[in-house]
Amino acid sequence: MDQNSIKSVSILGATGTIGQNTLDLIRRNKEKFQVVAITGNQNIKELVKQAIEFQVEFVATACEEKYHELKEALAETNIQCAAGEQAIIEAATRPVDICMAAIVGVAGLKPTLKALESSELVALANKECLVSAGDLFMQSAKQHQTKLIPVDSEHSAAFQCLSGHQIAEITKLTLTASGGPFRSFSKEQLQVVTKEQALKHPNWEMGAKITIDSATLMNKGLELIEAKHLFSLTANQVDMVVHPQSIIHCLVSFIDGSVLAQLSEPDMRVPIAYSLSWPKRMKTPIEPINLVEISKMDFEAGDEERFPCLKLARQVMETETFNGPALNAANEIAVDAFLSDKCSYIQIPQIIENVLDKMQNELKTIDRFCINDILQTDKLARNMALNLL
Amino acid sequence: MDQNSIKSVSILGATGTIGQNTLDLIRRNKEKFQVVAITGNQNIKELVKQAIEFQVEFVATACEEKYHELKEALAETNIQCAAGEQAIIEAATRPVDICMAAIVGVAGLKPTLKALESSELVALANKECLVSAGDLFMQSAKQHQTKLIPVDSEHSAAFQCLSGHQIAEITKLTLTASGGPFRSFSKEQLQVVTKEQALKHPNWEMGAKITIDSATLMNKGLELIEAKHLFSLTANQVDMVVHPQSIIHCLVSFIDGSVLAQLSEPDMRVPIAYSLSWPKRMKTPIEPINLVEISKMDFEAGDEERFPCLKLARQVMETETFNGPALNAANEIAVDAFLSDKCSYIQIPQIIENVLDKMQNELKTIDRFCINDILQTDKLARNMALNLL
Repeated sequence: MDQNSIKSVSILGATGTIGQNTLDLIRRNKEKFQVVAITGNQNIKELVKQAIEFQVEFVATACEEKYHELKEALAETNIQCAAGEQAIIEAATRPVDICMAAIVGVAGLKPTLKALESSELVALANKECLVSAGDLFMQSAKQHQTKLIPVDSEHSAAFQCLSGHQIAEITKLTLTASGGPFRSFSKEQLQVVTKEQALKHPNWEMGAKITIDSATLMNKGLELIEAKHLFSLTANQVDMVVHPQSIIHCLVSFIDGSVLAQLSEPDMRVPIAYSLSWPKRMKTPIEPINLVEISKMDFEAGDEERFPCLKLARQVMETETFNGPALNAANEIAVDAFLSDKCSYIQIPQIIENVLDKMQNELKTIDRFCINDILQTDKLARNMALNLL
Repeated sequence: MDQNSIKSVSILGATGTIGQNTLDLIRRNKEKFQVVAITGNQNIKELVKQAIEFQVEFVATACEEKYHELKEALAETNIQCAAGEQAIIEAATRPVDICMAAIVGVAGLKPTLKALESSELVALANKECLVSAGDLFMQSAKQHQTKLIPVDSEHSAAFQCLSGHQIAEITKLTLTASGGPFRSFSKEQLQVVTKEQALKHPNWEMGAKITIDSATLMNKGLELIEAKHLFSLTANQVDMVVHPQSIIHCLVSFIDGSVLAQLSEPDMRVPIAYSLSWPKRMKTPIEPINLVEISKMDFEAGDEERFPCLKLARQVMETETFNGPALNAANEIAVDAFLSDKCSYIQIPQIIENVLDKMQNELKTIDRFCINDILQTDKLARNMALNLL
């Protein structure tokens, strides 16, 4: 695509945090982008507001029951609208320069796969695509010569560090983790933590699911798996370190003893902006970091004993069997259960481990390049996790 | 040059720290490099040892009186040898893939200028080239399409961070300084520090002159000037921060709020290796950094009141008049005087400021693209500084 022309953009998951931040950046750079399609779920009010402000061509809600509400609200406009799973796929199929793939959860898999076929560049904010279906996604991106740019702050950091450098010369890629609200809690203290405590993330403002994942360090575990796929690394080339200030997001070590790192204020608009403006950069309202104010950065090892989710994710990453979808699905159910007071914090990894153990045999036969096999594994793991509660 | 063929290398200043470290790396990668010419000064024993080990074609000493000693030691070999200023120029004029320009001080100016004409790539370890003659050097590199790669750890860090990114998108380039042995000394304490104290650098092992420059922060001041030239930045785009652990060497801030940084153990072989292997990297014996062991990194502002050399360098960088050679020359004399107990630590910046003041008028007429004008200014400033002692 011509770097100076207006870029067409679709946003899958426009009403979520990533979607709204994407639109915030586009609003500040209106001359550079044209939003052609947006999708959302229940929040029709926000979706309509966005559709009208950005004069999109097509808007879709995943929620069939909301079709009439959406239709009615857009009656006086030329904006097309639709509802249901197929409508989201339709939005993803529009040929665009950039598709922001920000649907949360496994629901993002099929639309994002479609986007890889139709877009020049996919900005990937959905974690499940790589955790549950990393081989399939990387294969598809390659096959369709679609540029895949990560929007997660850690993976965007790695991507930025690698620009101009060679993956073959990496010795290690180290993602940082804030350590979450329970970083310095003892094993005994962790037994009685509440969801209210878990939801207080020290640095980032994010949705409830990912905030709990930060509190269990599963978030970092999932990110290790993502990084392995995204940069074609081996399991022992990806690592993590706890860095409570969340200023450094990722460090890439090279064969010569040199390390490149990316730093910024913890604001999702930094990686979003990079995915929108790549290979250039664009101005954002994010304050530059002030090292003198920051004053110090701390680092400590991730403790797999106190945070067994990290260990489980690492085991999944290291094993040959393909249990990413099971890990992800079991974790989602366990986190849901914790958020609705159906299990305790320390039961989250127990549920996941249990599901992974039980699924050993099923996993042997699945084809990790088949989306239906992946979705089937996901469903199976969910049911298994639900049965354990 | 073909990236896989053997690279021919000349080393100007082979017996110094940078030269020896360069040879250490080449020794570990003998299949990749062929050393064709080396130069040194007084240390003929080391020069001869190197010449024989690396089977160079040509070896030169700057010291005319040492000619016979050199000649005799190499009598049984086919290695050509020569002595004197012209011999060094001859070594610099050999066409090579890489010239390591590591002659210390203003003596490095003419040979390095020659190397820019004859080499494909100049690895620049001499500070004076950019501090005293930055405009001339950058112009010459451009004119001869010679790649100029900095070997200073901070500038190599910046260069690595910028690979794959655009200088036009930089907002700030921040060099780190260890702060030296007197980082937390009060103004009163600084009045009575000795050269023995000043020579104890907390992180780096370097020559005496540069160690004193680290203790006065003049080293960082000179590096700011170098960075401005090297990356074509404005004075307010280059900055420094004190970082006692010397793990991060430089940070580059971009318009989108993102910052890239380079980190490594404080070992000169990291930047040297990058200059030798660019655009690839090569294996080195340098241990990867271990963030968990490092545990923390601190940052604080550079204090121009306690360390006025930093302020003087910044003023030189900001003014339109071309007083880089005067700054550098006056500093060399003042540091020499301090090392031979002819002035105190706090007199170093006083001498420099005095010289800069006195030279205001002379500086108006010099042509900063003329090597003779630059060398003349250097001489004038040295004499003026000597007269002040």
